[in-house]
Amino acid sequence: MATGREVQLYLDLLSQPCRAVHILLTRTKIPHRVHSVALRKGEHRTSEFSKLNPMQKVPVLVDGGFILRESDAILKYLATTFDIPEHWYPWQPERRARVDEYTAWHHSNTRPHAAKVFMLEVLLPAQLGVPVDRRRLDRALSDLDVTLERLESMFLRRQPFLCGDDITVADLLAVCELMQPLGSGRDILKDRPQLRRWRSRVQSAVGESFDDAHAVLFAVRDRHRARVIKGQGQI
Amino acid sequence: MATGREVQLYLDLLSQPCRAVHILLTRTKIPHRVHSVALRKGEHRTSEFSKLNPMQKVPVLVDGGFILRESDAILKYLATTFDIPEHWYPWQPERRARVDEYTAWHHSNTRPHAAKVFMLEVLLPAQLGVPVDRRRLDRALSDLDVTLERLESMFLRRQPFLCGDDITVADLLAVCELMQPLGSGRDILKDRPQLRRWRSRVQSAVGESFDDAHAVLFAVRDRHRARVIKGQGQI
Repeated sequence: MATGREVQLYLDLLSQPCRAVHILLTRTKIPHRVHSVALRKGEHRTSEFSKLNPMQKVPVLVDGGFILRESDAILKYLATTFDIPEHWYPWQPERRARVDEYTAWHHSNTRPHAAKVFMLEVLLPAQLGVPVDRRRLDRALSDLDVTLERLESMFLRRQPFLCGDDITVADLLAVCELMQPLGSGRDILKDRPQLRRWRSRVQSAVGESFDDAHAVLFAVRDRHRARVIKGQGQI
Repeated sequence: MATGREVQLYLDLLSQPCRAVHILLTRTKIPHRVHSVALRKGEHRTSEFSKLNPMQKVPVLVDGGFILRESDAILKYLATTFDIPEHWYPWQPERRARVDEYTAWHHSNTRPHAAKVFMLEVLLPAQLGVPVDRRRLDRALSDLDVTLERLESMFLRRQPFLCGDDITVADLLAVCELMQPLGSGRDILKDRPQLRRWRSRVQSAVGESFDDAHAVLFAVRDRHRARVIKGQGQI
């Protein structure tokens, strides 16, 4: 590692994958600088940001001349190129494969299903000023429930973290997605004691980094509550 | 690598991710045994197979006592634990990160969009005996087109393979997805010369392994053609 190496992270903390990367950076004290890209202001569509990521998505990592997109890849790259505790992304092939197994599954399960609930319950009503589509929301919650059940019965079966005895980048990606529906005050883990205990373990393992990364989401939740009370349409 | 190590792969070659793993195994001559799990016969739902993968999905890799699901993780595990050419999954962190970047993107883009076209055009009509839902198919083709455009303008921009100058596991995952709509005779790369050239490069790089893995899909295409001609409903 070169002396003085500092990575640049472009993010919006309301984006789940951005929070996962932010937690790793702050928890492991990787030297970094945060550049805010406010999605609600369309800052991801500026020509400047599009040069970093033509797909106009956050997060983006810049490490010297190397530009990397996709939180999954960013987390693994950081874990392998900085001298941080090995448990985040183990070198031992079987243990590493367990992390890769979860993250591959994550993209087609945890991520889309939890994100959809947030989109239907918070984003669309706020952006379009329309009421929540209850039928679509019920279907999304039902899909999400299958994912939650599998997280408990498969990944967390007989182990405290998703990929074994210690926390990995997989837990960060998962917890940030499962927190997202809290934007409408909905705790999707309310009736899932096993996942709730896992979330507490993740929170303990990352300490203050958890609340730091989630401060923006908590603010959205509070504004959403106020909006529901006042019957207004702005998050 | 232990002498006599032979991995067991449970697969159905009509499944895109299974083909990707099969190509790597045969192309690099990793000692392996194939166990067929015929999805159309429901063999993935047997109690025997459910013990290997409670999610009842293929492929599953068994390496001694280690059981691994998710093609993405299986490909990377094989590439790092067998002595195969390094280009498949480079060790150099930036090059490896490029592969992880594509595979993360793949799960939310190439895979769902290409798979949906096959599902709407081949699987659902054959299984339910219903005509193709043209409106849904048009929307799926339009989503797929965005993915194809990004593959060309971003991943293949100024390089012959998705992640650089040589073939990686990312190309295998991608090509097997993009071949799938061929099950109905539809070549989605027909008007995409850049992607067609890339597919040819992948085919050259893997040789006979390509046709071996795709023989079942080609048979489906031929039966689909015959069905369309005869106006019958069985693939």
